[in-house]
Amino acid sequence: MADTQQITGRAIVSHGPFQAGGWKLQNVTLRPLRENELLVEVVASGVCHTDLHFAGLESGHGVHYPRVMGHEGAGYVRQVGPKVTAARVGDPVLLSFSACQTCQCCRRGHPAHCHNFDPINFESTQANRVFWDADADLSTVSTEPNIFGQFFGQSSFASWTLVQEESVVNVSGLVEGREGLQLLAPLGCGVQTGAGAVINAASAQPGDTVAVLGLGGVGLSAVMGARIAGCRTIIGVARNQARLELALALGATHVVRINPNADEHHVTEAVLALTDDLGADVTLETTGVPKLIAEGMRMTANKGRIVQLGTAPENTLLSLPVHEFMVAGKQYIGVVEGDVVPRTFVPKMIEWIKTGLLPLHEMVGFYQAEDYRTAISDMKSGKTIKPVLLW
Amino acid sequence: MADTQQITGRAIVSHGPFQAGGWKLQNVTLRPLRENELLVEVVASGVCHTDLHFAGLESGHGVHYPRVMGHEGAGYVRQVGPKVTAARVGDPVLLSFSACQTCQCCRRGHPAHCHNFDPINFESTQANRVFWDADADLSTVSTEPNIFGQFFGQSSFASWTLVQEESVVNVSGLVEGREGLQLLAPLGCGVQTGAGAVINAASAQPGDTVAVLGLGGVGLSAVMGARIAGCRTIIGVARNQARLELALALGATHVVRINPNADEHHVTEAVLALTDDLGADVTLETTGVPKLIAEGMRMTANKGRIVQLGTAPENTLLSLPVHEFMVAGKQYIGVVEGDVVPRTFVPKMIEWIKTGLLPLHEMVGFYQAEDYRTAISDMKSGKTIKPVLLW
Repeated sequence: MADTQQITGRAIVSHGPFQAGGWKLQNVTLRPLRENELLVEVVASGVCHTDLHFAGLESGHGVHYPRVMGHEGAGYVRQVGPKVTAARVGDPVLLSFSACQTCQCCRRGHPAHCHNFDPINFESTQANRVFWDADADLSTVSTEPNIFGQFFGQSSFASWTLVQEESVVNVSGLVEGREGLQLLAPLGCGVQTGAGAVINAASAQPGDTVAVLGLGGVGLSAVMGARIAGCRTIIGVARNQARLELALALGATHVVRINPNADEHHVTEAVLALTDDLGADVTLETTGVPKLIAEGMRMTANKGRIVQLGTAPENTLLSLPVHEFMVAGKQYIGVVEGDVVPRTFVPKMIEWIKTGLLPLHEMVGFYQAEDYRTAISDMKSGKTIKPVLLW
Repeated sequence: MADTQQITGRAIVSHGPFQAGGWKLQNVTLRPLRENELLVEVVASGVCHTDLHFAGLESGHGVHYPRVMGHEGAGYVRQVGPKVTAARVGDPVLLSFSACQTCQCCRRGHPAHCHNFDPINFESTQANRVFWDADADLSTVSTEPNIFGQFFGQSSFASWTLVQEESVVNVSGLVEGREGLQLLAPLGCGVQTGAGAVINAASAQPGDTVAVLGLGGVGLSAVMGARIAGCRTIIGVARNQARLELALALGATHVVRINPNADEHHVTEAVLALTDDLGADVTLETTGVPKLIAEGMRMTANKGRIVQLGTAPENTLLSLPVHEFMVAGKQYIGVVEGDVVPRTFVPKMIEWIKTGLLPLHEMVGFYQAEDYRTAISDMKSGKTIKPVLLW
C-alpha cells in the first residue's frame, strides 16, 4: 500500500480566477490521510460552471488560494483512513458533495440542503490543506501543506486526491473498467442536479407538461429526467440552436428558441402556445437569469411547480406577484443537487444509463487533463455541453 | 312546494361599499329556479373580510351593484331546479365556492384553483340576477331581477337565496337541527381555508413546527388544523393580545406578539428563538401584508414551506432573494380555500368538531341578521373572530 506522504501527482491549481490566468497544472504531493478520508486515484472529473465561479471569488470569507477545484470526480480508492466504512481499497467510486449528516436536513434525508453545506463544500480551512507544490524549492516549503483541497469534499482536478468519506459513492459492482468510470464522472453533480430536480424534487408525473429553461448540462439532464419520468410534453428552451437539437435527441418533444433581441415574454407565449394555453405543470429554471425566472413563473400552469436549480447572482431579488401567484396555486421550489441522496440516486442513474434511458454520452466530451483550457473554452462556447477531464 | 316566483325574503343588499353606507337590509323577491340551481332557506351565514373587499370594489370589471354578498351559508333546501342531483328538498346544506368542474385544475381535484374561479364566484353576469326589490314601486320594477346574487354561487346574506349546485355541500345525516347547522356556517370558506392549508396543501406532519402569521378566522383555523395534524410546535403570531390567548386555547403551543412600533425582524427572531434557530417547517401566511410575507420567508426552516393564504393587495410584488431561497431549499406555495374539495373536506371538519378537535364555537359569535353592522364592527375590532348572521 502506498504511503500518502510519498504520493506525488498532478493537479490543476487555482492561484486566482481562471479568467485572469490563475490556473496552472503542476506537480503536487499529498499529506497523509486522516480519519474519514480516502486516497483516490482520479480517473476523470467533469468540469462545471461552479468550478469557475468559486475559483473566481476574491480570497477571504473562507475562500483561500491556492486551491484545487473539481467536484465531479470518478476514480479508484487506493488507501483508506481510520474509521472509513464507505469503501475499500480497489473500489471504484464516484465523488459527490459532502454533508454533515447530523443537522435536521441531513437527518430528514435532504443532505443537499445541509445547514453546514457551505463550510463543508466551499470554504477552505486548515483541515482542507491537502497538497504541497512538489516542484517548489524545499527550503521554502512549510511543514503544513499550502494548497487547499477538498472542494466539495474532493478537489478532483488532480490525478490523486484526498476525499472526505461523505463525498464517496461506492459504485463497486455497478461499473466495468476505467472507460465505464470515465463516462460516469458527471453523475455526482450536474446530472443529478437536473434529473433529480425533475424526478425527485418536483415528482414529475407521466401526464405532466415540463418546460426546461436553459439547456446546459443541468438543463439537458432535466430533459432526460423528464423522459425517464414519462412526461408527455417536454419543452426545451435555450438560445443555442445546437443545444435545442441535442434536447430533441435526448427526449424533448418540443423546443423554443430564445431570441436575445426580443422581449422575454415571447418565451412564455411560445410555451403557452404549445400547451393549449395551460402552461407547464413543472418548469425547471436552470439559468438563474432573473428575467427568465420571471418568465418561468408566468409560463407555469395553475397548481404548477417552478423549480429553481440555476444559481442566480447572490443578491438577486425576484419580484413575485403575490396575488396572482396565490390565486393560481403555484409553487416556487428551491432545489440544490436535485435534492438527492447521492448514494441512493447515483445507482439509479447508472441503471438508466445501462438501459438507454439516460444517454449521458451524448452530452459528454473527453479531454486530457492538460487540455483543460480547451475543455473550459468549449464549455463556454457551447461546443461541448459537459467536458470531462481524463487523468 | 313553494313557487319561487312567490318567495319573498330579506337580504342585505350592497348598493356600494359598506364603509360608504352602501349596505341595506331590505325585502327581496326571488326569480324562478333554473337548471342546476337550488332554492335554499338560509339559517346562518358567516361574515368574512372577502365580503367587505368585494363590496368595496368599483362597479365594472364584472362587478355590478346592487348585489347580495355572503359566502359562508348554511340552510335547508326548499326546492331544486332541473338536473340537480347534489341534494333533495329538506336536506341541510353548507354552501361553499363554485367551480367549473371541467378545466384541468377541476379535473385534477383542485377546484379552488379552477381556471374560471373569478367569473364563476366573483363576477356578476345577467345569469346572476336573482332578486327584485320587493318594496319598490311596481311600476318601476323591470321584468328581469335587478339585484345580483350568486356571489360565490350563493349570496347567503339573504333569508332565501338561489344557489348554484356546485356550491352545495349536502350535510344530511351529519348535523342535528337548526342550531347545529348555524355553528357550521363558516366551514365552507374561512375554516377550510386555514385548516385545509395546513392539513391538505402543506401536508403538515406530526413532527413539524408550524408558524401561523395572523390570527383571524383563517389563522386560528390553521392553528386548529395544525393541532389536528398533531404538529409538535404551533406558534401563533399576531398583534392582538386577545387573539394570542385564543390561539393558545385552540392549540397553539407558543405565541409571538407583533410590536407594531418595531421593525418586523423581531417576529422572525422570536420564531427562531422558539425553534432552536431552525425556523418553522411550515409557515402559514394569512395576513397578506408584504412585510410579514417577507418575514415568513425568513422564519421558515431549510426545506420548509411558506404557504400563502392571505390575500395581498392586487399589485403587491414580493422581493424574493433567489439564491438564499434556493440554497435553503424553501418552497413558496399559493393556496386558495385550503385547496380542498369541499364535499370531501367539510364532512371531515364536522367529524373533528364532534370529537372536539376543532372547537369552532370558541371563535364564533352569533348576531341576528339585522345587527350585521355590529357584527362587522366587532369583526374589525377583533371582539369577534368569526361573526355568524342568523336569519
